[in-house]
Amino acid sequence: MTKKMRQLSATISRLPVGEKNDITDVAGVRVGHVTIQHELDNDDYACTGVTAILPHGGSLFREKVTAASYVINGFGKTTGLVQVNELGVLESPIMLTNTFSVPAVTQGTLQYMLDTNEEIGDTTGTINIVVGECNDGHLNSIRRCVVRPEDAREAIQNATDQAVEEGAVGAGTGMIAFGYKGGIGSSSRIVVAEGHTYTLGSLVLSNFGNKNDFLGANLFTSCKSYENAVEKSEDGSIIIVLATDAPLSDRQLLRVAKRAGIGLGRTGSHFGHGSGDIVIAFSTAQKIPHQTTTITETRVQLREDHPIMNELFAAAAEATEEAIYHSLAQAVTTTGRKGRIVHAYPSQGLGQ
Amino acid sequence: MTKKMRQLSATISRLPVGEKNDITDVAGVRVGHVTIQHELDNDDYACTGVTAILPHGGSLFREKVTAASYVINGFGKTTGLVQVNELGVLESPIMLTNTFSVPAVTQGTLQYMLDTNEEIGDTTGTINIVVGECNDGHLNSIRRCVVRPEDAREAIQNATDQAVEEGAVGAGTGMIAFGYKGGIGSSSRIVVAEGHTYTLGSLVLSNFGNKNDFLGANLFTSCKSYENAVEKSEDGSIIIVLATDAPLSDRQLLRVAKRAGIGLGRTGSHFGHGSGDIVIAFSTAQKIPHQTTTITETRVQLREDHPIMNELFAAAAEATEEAIYHSLAQAVTTTGRKGRIVHAYPSQGLGQ
Amino acid sequence: MTKKMRQLSATISRLPVGEKNDITDVAGVRVGHVTIQHELDNDDYACTGVTAILPHGGSLFREKVTAASYVINGFGKTTGLVQVNELGVLESPIMLTNTFSVPAVTQGTLQYMLDTNEEIGDTTGTINIVVGECNDGHLNSIRRCVVRPEDAREAIQNATDQAVEEGAVGAGTGMIAFGYKGGIGSSSRIVVAEGHTYTLGSLVLSNFGNKNDFLGANLFTSCKSYENAVEKSEDGSIIIVLATDAPLSDRQLLRVAKRAGIGLGRTGSHFGHGSGDIVIAFSTAQKIPHQTTTITETRVQLREDHPIMNELFAAAAEATEEAIYHSLAQAVTTTGRKGRIVHAYPSQGLGQ
Amino acid sequence: MTKKMRQLSATISRLPVGEKNDITDVAGVRVGHVTIQHELDNDDYACTGVTAILPHGGSLFREKVTAASYVINGFGKTTGLVQVNELGVLESPIMLTNTFSVPAVTQGTLQYMLDTNEEIGDTTGTINIVVGECNDGHLNSIRRCVVRPEDAREAIQNATDQAVEEGAVGAGTGMIAFGYKGGIGSSSRIVVAEGHTYTLGSLVLSNFGNKNDFLGANLFTSCKSYENAVEKSEDGSIIIVLATDAPLSDRQLLRVAKRAGIGLGRTGSHFGHGSGDIVIAFSTAQKIPHQTTTITETRVQLREDHPIMNELFAAAAEATEEAIYHSLAQAVTTTGRKGRIVHAYPSQGLGQ
Repeated sequence: MTKKMRQLSATISRLPVGEKNDITDVAGVRVGHVTIQHELDNDDYACTGVTAILPHGGSLFREKVTAASYVINGFGKTTGLVQVNELGVLESPIMLTNTFSVPAVTQGTLQYMLDTNEEIGDTTGTINIVVGECNDGHLNSIRRCVVRPEDAREAIQNATDQAVEEGAVGAGTGMIAFGYKGGIGSSSRIVVAEGHTYTLGSLVLSNFGNKNDFLGANLFTSCKSYENAVEKSEDGSIIIVLATDAPLSDRQLLRVAKRAGIGLGRTGSHFGHGSGDIVIAFSTAQKIPHQTTTITETRVQLREDHPIMNELFAAAAEATEEAIYHSLAQAVTTTGRKGRIVHAYPSQGLGQ
Repeated sequence: MTKKMRQLSATISRLPVGEKNDITDVAGVRVGHVTIQHELDNDDYACTGVTAILPHGGSLFREKVTAASYVINGFGKTTGLVQVNELGVLESPIMLTNTFSVPAVTQGTLQYMLDTNEEIGDTTGTINIVVGECNDGHLNSIRRCVVRPEDAREAIQNATDQAVEEGAVGAGTGMIAFGYKGGIGSSSRIVVAEGHTYTLGSLVLSNFGNKNDFLGANLFTSCKSYENAVEKSEDGSIIIVLATDAPLSDRQLLRVAKRAGIGLGRTGSHFGHGSGDIVIAFSTAQKIPHQTTTITETRVQLREDHPIMNELFAAAAEATEEAIYHSLAQAVTTTGRKGRIVHAYPSQGLGQ
Repeated sequence: MTKKMRQLSATISRLPVGEKNDITDVAGVRVGHVTIQHELDNDDYACTGVTAILPHGGSLFREKVTAASYVINGFGKTTGLVQVNELGVLESPIMLTNTFSVPAVTQGTLQYMLDTNEEIGDTTGTINIVVGECNDGHLNSIRRCVVRPEDAREAIQNATDQAVEEGAVGAGTGMIAFGYKGGIGSSSRIVVAEGHTYTLGSLVLSNFGNKNDFLGANLFTSCKSYENAVEKSEDGSIIIVLATDAPLSDRQLLRVAKRAGIGLGRTGSHFGHGSGDIVIAFSTAQKIPHQTTTITETRVQLREDHPIMNELFAAAAEATEEAIYHSLAQAVTTTGRKGRIVHAYPSQGLGQ
Repeated sequence: MTKKMRQLSATISRLPVGEKNDITDVAGVRVGHVTIQHELDNDDYACTGVTAILPHGGSLFREKVTAASYVINGFGKTTGLVQVNELGVLESPIMLTNTFSVPAVTQGTLQYMLDTNEEIGDTTGTINIVVGECNDGHLNSIRRCVVRPEDAREAIQNATDQAVEEGAVGAGTGMIAFGYKGGIGSSSRIVVAEGHTYTLGSLVLSNFGNKNDFLGANLFTSCKSYENAVEKSEDGSIIIVLATDAPLSDRQLLRVAKRAGIGLGRTGSHFGHGSGDIVIAFSTAQKIPHQTTTITETRVQLREDHPIMNELFAAAAEATEEAIYHSLAQAVTTTGRKGRIVHAYPSQGLGQ
């Protein structure tokens, strides 16, 4: 499937779209996947994976970025938010996987960071790892915990700043949205003011929504019958990662992060009870060194009463909404445990 | 204008609508207005008012209700939330007015509560008054602070459980939404499960939105040219009051309150920087006596893993979205300070 | 009573004390009081007042300061925190008064700000007023609402950067702490690192604590019998204002504000159920203009992994603990409504 | 060392102490340890462990308990709090370990819960595991990640309702407090009202504090010279677990949890910048079934305006303060990596 869906869904948008229409339009941001999909014994099936989002290509521990997180609905097992909230910085890749693989992915990411920063836990303090998750247990034999720590390392090493591979890949391999195959989606927006141009990108791991609630159907060209949609009893979740090169303080990033929920709501979500709907946002505008010799530091940030702040809010809403549509549009029909099939969203003619 | 708009906008809705399609569909809830609209000296103009929402008709101090508040965006001067958040109860009417009249309305409401509960501040403790506000300074000479404490008392005394008067009335008299005349709007939804029927109602004071962001235009029948819309530099605000007779704990009410933001986002809001977007939710299911002789108390609440919880979430989103449309559809063209005119939304043929 | 108590209580302290040992040791900070104490008709008694804390001597609206608030326990009616939390700035004096005079003091402060900044509510937006309160209803006929808006204005105009008048003055006139006369107290600490010297000051309005919980008795020289202490059924409250000239972001100020609770706990408080224990902190290091022509701004802040951050945390705890002792040590025996007497803490020999 | 320290430290206390003066005084609560202490190759040293706190002896997934968490200072990697905050329930043991072993302990606890509840991740949803941590990297070669998932399982299986083993055991094996050997400590308090008797217990994993800040020295009998105390550059952390059989809602438990910080502050902590100071509180009064057939449920909770609420607040402060002293008093001198020695607190004659 081509990316023409994007031109279509761009009709939902007031703001200009980035060149790749991906989170990697934010300079320096990298995304990598590991996809795990194979039969296991006892009729079990591995249908899962890992996705890594890197704010930049250097040592994330030695050069941290400003960050914030926002819990839209907290039925989730995301780890690492306590420290992000306290300090307003991110010092590791943001990792995505299935619910029961959070420990393995945390372990693998930790090991990667220890290997590449020998001072951690020796001559300096510890490190905070951020891992988000959704429950892919409909297709994936989640109790088997097939993701290994090495998969996290590999996802990090796979990360590139190219167009993001979307749909049933990486952590999105087994995810379901609105009864159809969901997973990874991404989109971006450009805001311009007074000679400044800033990019905001959103990447989602979509695994939520009842088919009857879907509000985006009119954006898809063909079938709206939902006849082959999955009926799920569980509410699912979504992890939303926002990146921007606009200079924002952690408090300002929190404000932007809250607007991702607008995009989520516009697709038809009601932030279901059993949904872990979580946003993590970071700015690449300024790197915060782990150690300095100075007592003060200088931070540049947007005047938040400048109209551009509202543009960034709109960008977060628009890019997140469109990223969710992309996760649906790009995902392929997938077979998993117990022979279950989750169909691609019925938009076959789309973008052709 | 008739209420046929409601049948129209009900097309946005999956859930059944309450009998009056108003917050007063929740048994016991009462709404009252005082509208203030007249010229002042020096070319100033009073174009404002007060709206009171009463959870029930008894003493709200002696019989409190479970409550929660949620700040979508905190550029606002709403008062009383600190204690609602700590204790999870509401012990006064919820009052709405313009930004600079919060002190007068607080004073008047306090005086009313003191007069009708002689123990407050004498033999028992104090009382917490909740007052929400939006800035109607485009039409209203807000610096003149024309609202008096007696207006608050009168709004309380005007409160009835009849259909809510909407549009440019009460606190909504001078408000503007998406460049057109906004103000008071209300809507309700019914959720049913296992022989239980619960009602959730939303009442909004709408004063937000840029005309270019409005997403509800296709729900209105006629003009979409926006040619007579107001260009405002300020972001405005919205206060959303949710009432339900479903038995919910304060934590559950907070969860429901957060979903009001979905409805707000669907109308086109990006929770603007300068917007005080605040939700106050209460349940009438159980009255909490100010004083008892027991050491424990029993609270009934919904099993939140029951599907009805998600229905209530959807109800909060739907009723809030529709309440905003009603605030537009019911408001009349209004003239205010400096001869400024804010037009009714151009849907004249609507519902006729 | 002299201020020698301060040398005594300095024994609780590891950090050096500021010159005046007052919040006014932070350059620019001003404090003003209005004390209201007279008989009313019907055996009622006015025993209350207003205290104003000004971060600097200019227009607080046009030159805002970075700020944060923290609710230790939210049984309180403090107003203005919603916007401080959202934006991280303070744009008005911090006002203190009794619970039922919050509307009058808000009104008076608003009027003062409108009079001295004619653009507010006309050519620019509105203004956020912060008013903290405790319940002085044991001594003061609080239902009579004797404080007038003009008293707020007068307190602001009385503000000076001299030594703070403490005890039963201003908003502290009718307050009670640990069964004895409390009210206004203040203290300060100095932190030094790498050639930088910063001052942190605390000012409290103390109105909390059961006599049996008091842990500071050994700091007072004479009587510990508590035989003339008041038995109060209500829990009371405390408002804590922290000022510093250290360059701190709003998030950093929030972290400092949380440490004020340490000092409160060390005096014997358990943050009682019925207590509104609220901290408001601001930094004078950088003035934030209301309007600029730029899209970005530069903020200087401390490296929070620098040891000086922990020193500021200790300063907040120490200065707040000592400020509470000062509020006791400086307060005089006071008579109020129903002929009630609240005694000065029995430390008559203290400091003589 | 005997437990006579407890009689000593009970002098800090106004409330009666539980029979064992341990968290296991709360009926049903169980605590288990795994201690890991041996040389590794390359001069590394394993000096760490795992501690498990079980609210009751049944399936914690099928019979959840009401819970709340509170982050005093968030420089920490505790996992599982997002869902506890959203839903107000705990459905797993609370596990404690070192910072880098959070993934292994999460994995082991997850595996234990999967093995003993075959429906998780198959016919029902997932499970939320709560793991707290401190950094024991001064004594323990934390980069070696010696804790294995099986150690978590073993700690759970070791859990008993007997007196808690304290000091340098379990997760406390390598921890340091105020420059001396810290680790596990516990204490309890009894509150009585109107024929009801409730117990509140605190268990801490102490790993914080500079020797110069220690305020409890006068409670220890002998040396106060601190001459053999460790100078640490890192701030350390503390995890505080509160258990009670008082019927409290999640909001009420949050209020109680916040008071643990009072006890922490009274020992001399300033909630250091680099400290992960986190409280997790639960009530055993009512078990919440994972599944029911009803739409509503009934919860019993304390009237929070009853004086017993303040007693519980005091109990949380007192028991936490004393638990910290116990962690010091019971810990033995310990040798770890690089030949480092951390001395027992110099109170050798204590309690003999």
